[in-house]
Amino acid sequence: MHFDSDYTSTCHPLILERLAQTQGQHFDGYGTDAITLSAREKIRALCQRPDAAVYFLCGGTQTNMVVINYLLRSFEGVLAADSAHIAIHESGAVEFTGHKVLNLPSRDGKITAAQVDDYVNNYYADPNWEHIVPPGMVYITYPTEYGTLYSLSELEQLSAVCRKHNIPLYLDGARLGYALAAEDTDVTLRDIARLCDAFYIGGTKCGAMFGEAVVIPDGRRADRFFSHIKRHGALIAKGWVTALQFDTLLDGDSLTDTPYYNICSHAVKEAMRLKNSLIGKGYTQPVDSPTNQQFIEISLQQAEELKQHITYGEWEPPRGNKVTIRLATSWATDPKDIDKLIELL
Amino acid sequence: MHFDSDYTSTCHPLILERLAQTQGQHFDGYGTDAITLSAREKIRALCQRPDAAVYFLCGGTQTNMVVINYLLRSFEGVLAADSAHIAIHESGAVEFTGHKVLNLPSRDGKITAAQVDDYVNNYYADPNWEHIVPPGMVYITYPTEYGTLYSLSELEQLSAVCRKHNIPLYLDGARLGYALAAEDTDVTLRDIARLCDAFYIGGTKCGAMFGEAVVIPDGRRADRFFSHIKRHGALIAKGWVTALQFDTLLDGDSLTDTPYYNICSHAVKEAMRLKNSLIGKGYTQPVDSPTNQQFIEISLQQAEELKQHITYGEWEPPRGNKVTIRLATSWATDPKDIDKLIELL
Amino acid sequence: MHFDSDYTSTCHPLILERLAQTQGQHFDGYGTDAITLSAREKIRALCQRPDAAVYFLCGGTQTNMVVINYLLRSFEGVLAADSAHIAIHESGAVEFTGHKVLNLPSRDGKITAAQVDDYVNNYYADPNWEHIVPPGMVYITYPTEYGTLYSLSELEQLSAVCRKHNIPLYLDGARLGYALAAEDTDVTLRDIARLCDAFYIGGTKCGAMFGEAVVIPDGRRADRFFSHIKRHGALIAKGWVTALQFDTLLDGDSLTDTPYYNICSHAVKEAMRLKNSLIGKGYTQPVDSPTNQQFIEISLQQAEELKQHITYGEWEPPRGNKVTIRLATSWATDPKDIDKLIELL
Amino acid sequence: MHFDSDYTSTCHPLILERLAQTQGQHFDGYGTDAITLSAREKIRALCQRPDAAVYFLCGGTQTNMVVINYLLRSFEGVLAADSAHIAIHESGAVEFTGHKVLNLPSRDGKITAAQVDDYVNNYYADPNWEHIVPPGMVYITYPTEYGTLYSLSELEQLSAVCRKHNIPLYLDGARLGYALAAEDTDVTLRDIARLCDAFYIGGTKCGAMFGEAVVIPDGRRADRFFSHIKRHGALIAKGWVTALQFDTLLDGDSLTDTPYYNICSHAVKEAMRLKNSLIGKGYTQPVDSPTNQQFIEISLQQAEELKQHITYGEWEPPRGNKVTIRLATSWATDPKDIDKLIELL
Repeated sequence: MHFDSDYTSTCHPLILERLAQTQGQHFDGYGTDAITLSAREKIRALCQRPDAAVYFLCGGTQTNMVVINYLLRSFEGVLAADSAHIAIHESGAVEFTGHKVLNLPSRDGKITAAQVDDYVNNYYADPNWEHIVPPGMVYITYPTEYGTLYSLSELEQLSAVCRKHNIPLYLDGARLGYALAAEDTDVTLRDIARLCDAFYIGGTKCGAMFGEAVVIPDGRRADRFFSHIKRHGALIAKGWVTALQFDTLLDGDSLTDTPYYNICSHAVKEAMRLKNSLIGKGYTQPVDSPTNQQFIEISLQQAEELKQHITYGEWEPPRGNKVTIRLATSWATDPKDIDKLIELL
Repeated sequence: MHFDSDYTSTCHPLILERLAQTQGQHFDGYGTDAITLSAREKIRALCQRPDAAVYFLCGGTQTNMVVINYLLRSFEGVLAADSAHIAIHESGAVEFTGHKVLNLPSRDGKITAAQVDDYVNNYYADPNWEHIVPPGMVYITYPTEYGTLYSLSELEQLSAVCRKHNIPLYLDGARLGYALAAEDTDVTLRDIARLCDAFYIGGTKCGAMFGEAVVIPDGRRADRFFSHIKRHGALIAKGWVTALQFDTLLDGDSLTDTPYYNICSHAVKEAMRLKNSLIGKGYTQPVDSPTNQQFIEISLQQAEELKQHITYGEWEPPRGNKVTIRLATSWATDPKDIDKLIELL
Repeated sequence: MHFDSDYTSTCHPLILERLAQTQGQHFDGYGTDAITLSAREKIRALCQRPDAAVYFLCGGTQTNMVVINYLLRSFEGVLAADSAHIAIHESGAVEFTGHKVLNLPSRDGKITAAQVDDYVNNYYADPNWEHIVPPGMVYITYPTEYGTLYSLSELEQLSAVCRKHNIPLYLDGARLGYALAAEDTDVTLRDIARLCDAFYIGGTKCGAMFGEAVVIPDGRRADRFFSHIKRHGALIAKGWVTALQFDTLLDGDSLTDTPYYNICSHAVKEAMRLKNSLIGKGYTQPVDSPTNQQFIEISLQQAEELKQHITYGEWEPPRGNKVTIRLATSWATDPKDIDKLIELL
Repeated sequence: MHFDSDYTSTCHPLILERLAQTQGQHFDGYGTDAITLSAREKIRALCQRPDAAVYFLCGGTQTNMVVINYLLRSFEGVLAADSAHIAIHESGAVEFTGHKVLNLPSRDGKITAAQVDDYVNNYYADPNWEHIVPPGMVYITYPTEYGTLYSLSELEQLSAVCRKHNIPLYLDGARLGYALAAEDTDVTLRDIARLCDAFYIGGTKCGAMFGEAVVIPDGRRADRFFSHIKRHGALIAKGWVTALQFDTLLDGDSLTDTPYYNICSHAVKEAMRLKNSLIGKGYTQPVDSPTNQQFIEISLQQAEELKQHITYGEWEPPRGNKVTIRLATSWATDPKDIDKLIELL
């Protein structure tokens, strides 16, 4: 049984079926084909932004470096939680593009509007401000690396403070589907398109083979984005392959009708079953995650035993006799496996 | 009928069949899975280099920037034909990594050992050499952008001059299959692995959905290449998807048994049928291409008529009343379409 | 006797005198001091641009990389003559900032408005334009590396074509003084400030110890230029040292009253004496230079003999029995040395 | 009276005298002149490293970016205190070269061998290490930004841990003279040359007009450093101007005979007089600095009054009613001014 991540199962069968139907077809290159146009229109409709620029890239690190390098002026940095993916797990991809990641302390993966406001105000108040990297944009993950979510009110505050300071807000939605499908969330895809200056709808971790859909809601702010993508080596010749996956996953009259939503909803439901059981058994959870990633602290001995039965993610190096592990569900999670996991724990 | 490029048809059916077989399977992330290991071993065997480092990336521009930036010291440049893909069509991806492309004049896409030797000798003879970007590696395309090929003797001379000057030779094999399957070539994959310091086996333009296989024959020269890939945003989580395509296409006891070879051989055969007919009809070909890309000069009027029946590539902006067009075959080319095209021309 | 370059003599005595007068004084750091403000105002007045942004940097390569990287968007390239300093002699500094140098062929170091117009038009006419580095600005040297000058009409045409295509025109004035002091020039400093979007007034090669004064005539286009300079390591703590040199050299009611002009005028006069003599003696000059650099073709034997008496610059590696050498005058050139040189030749 | 920094007075008179003596002399360009060779030899002798590579650059930020970018592989980062100059006050110059600054927490500007050892060990212990920026070198300032010093034992431990992990140790000596001239230090210049893989001897803040002398004790590790400098725009044509300042300041049979040492010794002595008085008066010092920078916490009211009489540096934005200020001495500090300052406080 596999709970190590949400990208370790093959892709959703609908995508393979759709791929099989392409036999004998001809596609224009580099994302100028009909499937790409169709997928773009579906995303525009779901976001209620007919003017949005939509591009399909291959992976999350790539998307982050392309978007961040596009939005920032050369000497600016990007504000992010100190636990953010771009701050730690991207091998310096942001620095490769010449930009500094400006860390904000965070315990649950989230940052606050007040933190952003203080940072920007302190920056301009510093007598040496012109010698210091200016905060040129804000990066958030949604869900965060800890599975946590912003409320609509929190997102609105973040957006407002960014607009007050005239810096873009960018949302990394590598696992966006799990956020949208969370049980008590009050944030919709349309809210995100309204509140963020750029974001991406993650495919790789939500049932696709690979692919992330970048959305810049105000399409006028995407001038020459195509060439910018190419310059980062992020443009593939058969762009339709990436777009096809989103065209399939995001097909539906409304978001809740789409396979994307239903795949993620399934994963979240199973994660909640697991979570409730864990709470009942008295496990310590470092964060309260309403999405498909659940974290628990267990003893090294228990970790060793668990390894005989399942795969899981080791979240941090062990401290003393304890280790925090990640259990992730996905489109492929069999409810029976959750039952068995609950028995094991 | 489509002759505009070799990447505008969907992918080869064998790949879709193989993908369908992955249902229900679990794969470790980032290229640490069993399919990646298998594909790597197949490539090592075909190259007769059991020690080779093999990595799977998504596209050609990406591969070029990753490999070139890895092989060069920070202040060095890359020697290439002035018609080379990296010199023109990659939106400055090489410059993005901080390196200058040092142009060598070329009429058919090829460069010679003598040109490289002269360039390096002149560099060190220049009184201002320390102020000038040094030639730190040589980049060639094979086949070239004009479909032309190096002979074994030419490749051996290029390799020898590079080794004399202690600079790596890198071969961009975006269309490598068509070169290996050319009728009169005396160059084998093993020759390439013996003579080059790095090269890639192109997938995107040879029947795959996407993907290029980087080979560094002496694996000791690939230290931390994995992290280097990640830093360029070129690592995808489900690395098995890329590897699977090569594991499928390169399956066989010897290269000529593989689907990769047979796909490309088919395309080359059809291109040769077309070429012979074109010669018979008295067309002017700017270069003599033995591979799947054929170039002919036609009148603007003929070009306009042709557009009613087929897609083709316009190779250069028209000059006067003439335009050079590209006709490309691929795995998907139907021999009957070649028959019809011959009738049209 | 030294004719190898214009930067091999110590600096003009006026600068040392002025430096000596700073004893006991206090200066604010990083160019916020009174001398910097004074030098800036003098330059603004001479350019008749009271709104100009003026910054003082240390050297020519540094200035070029800072200005070019500031003016270009990340994916754009800079158009320049293939003999331009940035194209050859700056160790890839422009590429280090991520930008491609787009070469225009040139025989005398100059480029034409028609070349720029054609390049930009061809760029947008190319079916693959979005995959190609766009021409984002134009770089010219004045005087050129061959000592040649643009006429006012040529400069106006270049400026007009740049404005037509909405790309900035940047003038590298490493030896600007020699151009302004040339005998028959019809171009003034005010013309340059009117026609260019950025330029620099060279100090290092015109009598200073070091230093170049960047001018952006429309100061509103220099937002955060200070931080941009700092990020390139181009800001020195005692900024007054650089500014002092320009405050001294550019002191005067009008340009022709300034030491800068008079220094360069002296050098040009001596160069013209030499040139006229060379013409009289029947020497071949590859270009007709009206400034302080004179080029002649001599035999290798004569070159060897000359070396016993003077230093000179070898301009290119010898061809056959001939070599082109550069003879440069400067503020420090003693007319008696020119007399002796004429005797030697 | 000026106590705001050590770089706000003009330069030491010896340098101006020496400059005046250059009248009428000829110097080869770009640091190939006799003065540069002489200064290089003096530094080699003082360091007891006849094989050292020595280069003269213009400023501290420039030197840091050039050296760090030279020592690191492209995907590596530099370990530094979170208060380090490169981490905060260099406008992202290190990130501009593509490298991440990896922060180590510090309260007095220093880092420990144990911190470095832990960081490197944790890095390789992390299950995701290949996705994380590796610590490729260690950067320390000496004295630190807080005026504090490493003991010989601390430096030896840092050096040992770096050599154990095979990563270079680089020492930023912007104010090195004040460290060498500190009263109780047990660290000599030779120790630094023995324990560090690269360092620089600061000129700008120790009496020069500008300039920093980079020393790579094992000269074999400086291959093509010259071209690397040029590529960063950090090479000036009249290299002798920078070298002359070091040739003057470092003239002497031993370090303690040199003007450099004596200038800094004077500044430290006056700083110690001030410090002892401050302690006597009961001021709170956030750190115990044995060098020319002294920090005290005062009330906002006192700060306002002080401003009427002296210039000082505001070290951090005020907290509540308190502000920490910096009082710096230099070669130019008049002992009578220290007397007056003591009266004021």
